[in-house]
Amino acid sequence: MQHITSRQNVRVKEAAKLRDARQRQKQGRFLIDGGREILRAIERGVDVVEAFICEPLLVDGEARQAAERLRQSSPVVATVTAEVFEKLAFGERATGVLAVAKTPATADLRQAKGLGQVALPAAPLIAVIEGVEKPGNVGAILRSADGAGVDAVVIADPRTDLFNPNTIRASLGTVFDPNVCIASTEETLAWLGGLGVKVYAARPEAELLYTDADYRGGAAIVLGSEAEGLSGAWNGSDVTGIRLPMRGIADSLNVSTTAAVLFYEAQRQRTI
Amino acid sequence: MQHITSRQNVRVKEAAKLRDARQRQKQGRFLIDGGREILRAIERGVDVVEAFICEPLLVDGEARQAAERLRQSSPVVATVTAEVFEKLAFGERATGVLAVAKTPATADLRQAKGLGQVALPAAPLIAVIEGVEKPGNVGAILRSADGAGVDAVVIADPRTDLFNPNTIRASLGTVFDPNVCIASTEETLAWLGGLGVKVYAARPEAELLYTDADYRGGAAIVLGSEAEGLSGAWNGSDVTGIRLPMRGIADSLNVSTTAAVLFYEAQRQRTI
Repeated sequence: MQHITSRQNVRVKEAAKLRDARQRQKQGRFLIDGGREILRAIERGVDVVEAFICEPLLVDGEARQAAERLRQSSPVVATVTAEVFEKLAFGERATGVLAVAKTPATADLRQAKGLGQVALPAAPLIAVIEGVEKPGNVGAILRSADGAGVDAVVIADPRTDLFNPNTIRASLGTVFDPNVCIASTEETLAWLGGLGVKVYAARPEAELLYTDADYRGGAAIVLGSEAEGLSGAWNGSDVTGIRLPMRGIADSLNVSTTAAVLFYEAQRQRTI
Repeated sequence: MQHITSRQNVRVKEAAKLRDARQRQKQGRFLIDGGREILRAIERGVDVVEAFICEPLLVDGEARQAAERLRQSSPVVATVTAEVFEKLAFGERATGVLAVAKTPATADLRQAKGLGQVALPAAPLIAVIEGVEKPGNVGAILRSADGAGVDAVVIADPRTDLFNPNTIRASLGTVFDPNVCIASTEETLAWLGGLGVKVYAARPEAELLYTDADYRGGAAIVLGSEAEGLSGAWNGSDVTGIRLPMRGIADSLNVSTTAAVLFYEAQRQRTI
């Protein structure tokens, strides 16, 4: 196993560049920080091609487990000094293990996962997020969708790539779930129409309270971007607006908070 | 009105130092970024003692309104160049207006607001957050509590000061609500006991699902820190554990997300 002591090492430099979206697009690779996230990626069949391990930083149990899995499997693993790892690591997340993975399917991240791959139960609960800009919000929504047991999440007209390190981190690795996919708003609307599910769009100005909507028998919950909300494509008569009551001085919640409240209310109704 | 063009100006330097917790403690002052947050602070009687305005950056409606309010009222207002404002401003939040306020009550931030000041309706809904570490999480919980209409939020044994810029920002200024207060865990438990409300503690390992708890007739929802959860003080027989179902691969939600789901479920029950 190679041991890297220089921050100028070419492998280190190429991997560190993957913090940048254009470099991810160019190299067709992305980074996975953290033990838990790497384990989930491997479980979900993500193609890990390279990894860096910093032994002195490997204190966390899941990080050690991930390092072990990486050593046993195919990717080219190098050990690095703490100083080198610092160059590779994401913010304060120096958990001692970092993987480089191949972006699924094609070089165009937007096409990496499509609606065709989604497997659904009868009367599914679906989440759609359109144009959400902050990678951390996308990740947090994916984590809540996983927790609530949402059957599929469609990221419609994304403004951030799904393999941004912040998205992966905030999602705790749930971004690698096979039922997380990317599509255009147009494709998504057509797909939902074909499924025959009720479509509820979260809008601060809607009349219907979210608790008065009926999520049983198949439903989609649609959320728009932080700044602009949903596009006009969701104004059709087949889409019903819903809102959370706002009882204080603030006029809205963060989009990821709204998402969690809606997902859990939908599942509460669906499981009683 | 003074116009400041130098980043070395003494007022600018002293104000910029307030990004640091020790300086807030030392100076007995804190910063408020953003138009909306400043307006809320003024409405809530926070003692604004100084302000900086950068005309070219004043595009947002609430920022303009806040600047107008500040010019009309007592504090010492200075206009500054964009270059100077950049030194004062918080991250990407260059909205063109920044206020310096006096920390309420005493120089010890932990004593700034106490349980004695809390006014409650009959059968209140109370939130308690113990030892939450990230200012952004504290702020997000305050914003959700405001939205859901929680009657009081107690920050028990805080590990971050309430006047951290991240807290103020994430709370959208709801941190200035008079029913947000600080207390020790011991004081909080005694206070809740005196009120005779049901006390529900969020714990991943609890048996009772949060939807099966009864929040009518007075209830407190208690949340612990991101890493360690709640302290042993909440293990008494008068405290009932509740949990959110986790149906996916992740074993928990972010504490601020959990808080929002619990607050909204409690209010759903209380308003039907």
